[in-house]
Amino acid sequence: MNRLRTTFQQATGQISGHGKRNIGVLKTALEDVTDETASDQYGTGSIIQPFEQKFADVLGMEDAVFFPSGTMAQQIALRIWSDETDNRTVAYHPLCHLEIHEQDGLKELHPIKTILVGEADRVMTLDEIKALPDIACLLLELPQREIGGVAPAFSELEAISRYCRERDIRLHLDGARLFEMLPYYEKTAVEIAGLFDSVYISFYKGLGGIAGAILAGPATFCQTARIWKRRYGGDLISLYPYILSADYYYELRKDRMGQYYEDAKQLAERFNALPGIHTTPKVPVSNMFHLHFSGQAADVSPKLEKIQEETGLGFAGYLVDKDGYCSTEISVGDAYAQLDAQTVDAGFERLRQVFS
Amino acid sequence: MNRLRTTFQQATGQISGHGKRNIGVLKTALEDVTDETASDQYGTGSIIQPFEQKFADVLGMEDAVFFPSGTMAQQIALRIWSDETDNRTVAYHPLCHLEIHEQDGLKELHPIKTILVGEADRVMTLDEIKALPDIACLLLELPQREIGGVAPAFSELEAISRYCRERDIRLHLDGARLFEMLPYYEKTAVEIAGLFDSVYISFYKGLGGIAGAILAGPATFCQTARIWKRRYGGDLISLYPYILSADYYYELRKDRMGQYYEDAKQLAERFNALPGIHTTPKVPVSNMFHLHFSGQAADVSPKLEKIQEETGLGFAGYLVDKDGYCSTEISVGDAYAQLDAQTVDAGFERLRQVFS
Repeated sequence: MNRLRTTFQQATGQISGHGKRNIGVLKTALEDVTDETASDQYGTGSIIQPFEQKFADVLGMEDAVFFPSGTMAQQIALRIWSDETDNRTVAYHPLCHLEIHEQDGLKELHPIKTILVGEADRVMTLDEIKALPDIACLLLELPQREIGGVAPAFSELEAISRYCRERDIRLHLDGARLFEMLPYYEKTAVEIAGLFDSVYISFYKGLGGIAGAILAGPATFCQTARIWKRRYGGDLISLYPYILSADYYYELRKDRMGQYYEDAKQLAERFNALPGIHTTPKVPVSNMFHLHFSGQAADVSPKLEKIQEETGLGFAGYLVDKDGYCSTEISVGDAYAQLDAQTVDAGFERLRQVFS
Repeated sequence: MNRLRTTFQQATGQISGHGKRNIGVLKTALEDVTDETASDQYGTGSIIQPFEQKFADVLGMEDAVFFPSGTMAQQIALRIWSDETDNRTVAYHPLCHLEIHEQDGLKELHPIKTILVGEADRVMTLDEIKALPDIACLLLELPQREIGGVAPAFSELEAISRYCRERDIRLHLDGARLFEMLPYYEKTAVEIAGLFDSVYISFYKGLGGIAGAILAGPATFCQTARIWKRRYGGDLISLYPYILSADYYYELRKDRMGQYYEDAKQLAERFNALPGIHTTPKVPVSNMFHLHFSGQAADVSPKLEKIQEETGLGFAGYLVDKDGYCSTEISVGDAYAQLDAQTVDAGFERLRQVFS
């Protein structure tokens, strides 16, 4: 499988991502920052405080806290809502990041029980939420990454939000890819975040920063989040390498989300026109989708490697075996826009030939 | 009190520190790293893995894990030893970092009870350790920072280590300033770390990096520490801004610790020769000591501000009121070596005049 990654990375261009994650990403972000700019210091100073306020405003929340990671930010959000409602149960999708990627941190570090809502292969419904027992908080992820980036209609979100407010259930948004969703919803971040009590956003998904996250919500929530951030060891003396790059790439890419979304739809359409290849969702609602090839990874990989070497176009760096097919994730960014049409056409033509 | 900080920072030179903590610190560390160098990725890659092995070797341990913070690293160390010994009690000094600077993270995040050993104003003794009930782990800090940087004799450390091994008590070293202690002990890091089961070191104290820590110990301990690092949200996709700078400043300053130590002893001697001023310890055992002025901060601050403005020599950026005197921390680094003798002489002469 390593050869698949190598041929993907060494291809002249890739359909996915923003290009290589190398030190140049940081150096570029720092280029226009003067050496004399003072470091943030344990959450204070002119690098972090105005940045946090900026994202409070972007999300229409009272306050916001910068975190080194979303893992830390979201566990803390759920703990605070659990304490505030005096209820030890929270609910989320079966493929929620907290359930499958965090070594059970939430449950190992907090006295919190979780309920998985709905089925793994689709987004949860309002009816399923209504059937839940009494919970402190419901976490919704927009888009639902692990199933290819799927999201409910905005009206469904509004209905879920109304229901949670009636029942005094806190609604938390895993908005790791929130900005990537705005073109589909044709809404501002404030309009979407306004349906939630707290919101997390990530700076290294569609925005392509180095690492880091914002957790936004009411003032007292954020005040408590800062205490938990210190408890977790996330209140570093200096977080500026992440903050400066987050701000740089946010400004660079926030207005490109519409283009990434259009590109993703066009790409998915081209893939779905090929025999033995399909995407989920069939029509993307963000910059991402999952790409599936009939057959097992052991058979598909050598074919893809050959195509990537021959055409110089990188389609996939890894494949995961599913039941009768294998899959990879496509997340459209700047790399796709840099490709010329002939390279893309030639790549898709080879795909058609090889997978027919 | 803010004027005290301003006059300290704006002075031509400072007796303490390595100079300003600004973005230049990072830019300098990255200068010779090429843009094409690939980022670490969730704990893997050529930036992080050889770095961790290097510090495993520096400390004579089987393995080492890079952490964004010492807070995270040490809580995790105590949790692992607690699990391994099936004992929920750990012990440390009353002014341990975990007890006074972490918003009770250890106790809020883990089912761990703590015992405070000895008195706040001195290091703990072997007799006090022998009087403890059954514990999982004892944490020792070298030097004990909150009392000015004090440390037991090496023979006392050896005796503590022997006792803990006999009793199956895990011994963890808070070595935030371990390298700063080597000249006094006239020992290598391996010789000191060898008395302990696990060791934490910091990269932004005497080494002057940006942030980050190493936790070193047996292979299985480190393997478990990586799982907890993910649970805490410390397993960032990219930690390279901290790692590259940690490595740069470690290489730059590791051989200067002897000079910092000599400078600290000389400085303390000059302070102790002045009326109304004294240091703890009287003779430093590392690059640090606490500096005390008779009287309250409200009276001492304006005097110091005036001296710092007049002489261009920064002595203190803050003062904390104690009983009948007020105090600041001196941590000798590169800044002191950059001062010329006349500036230092003039500064001390003004101190004598003003505080007599």
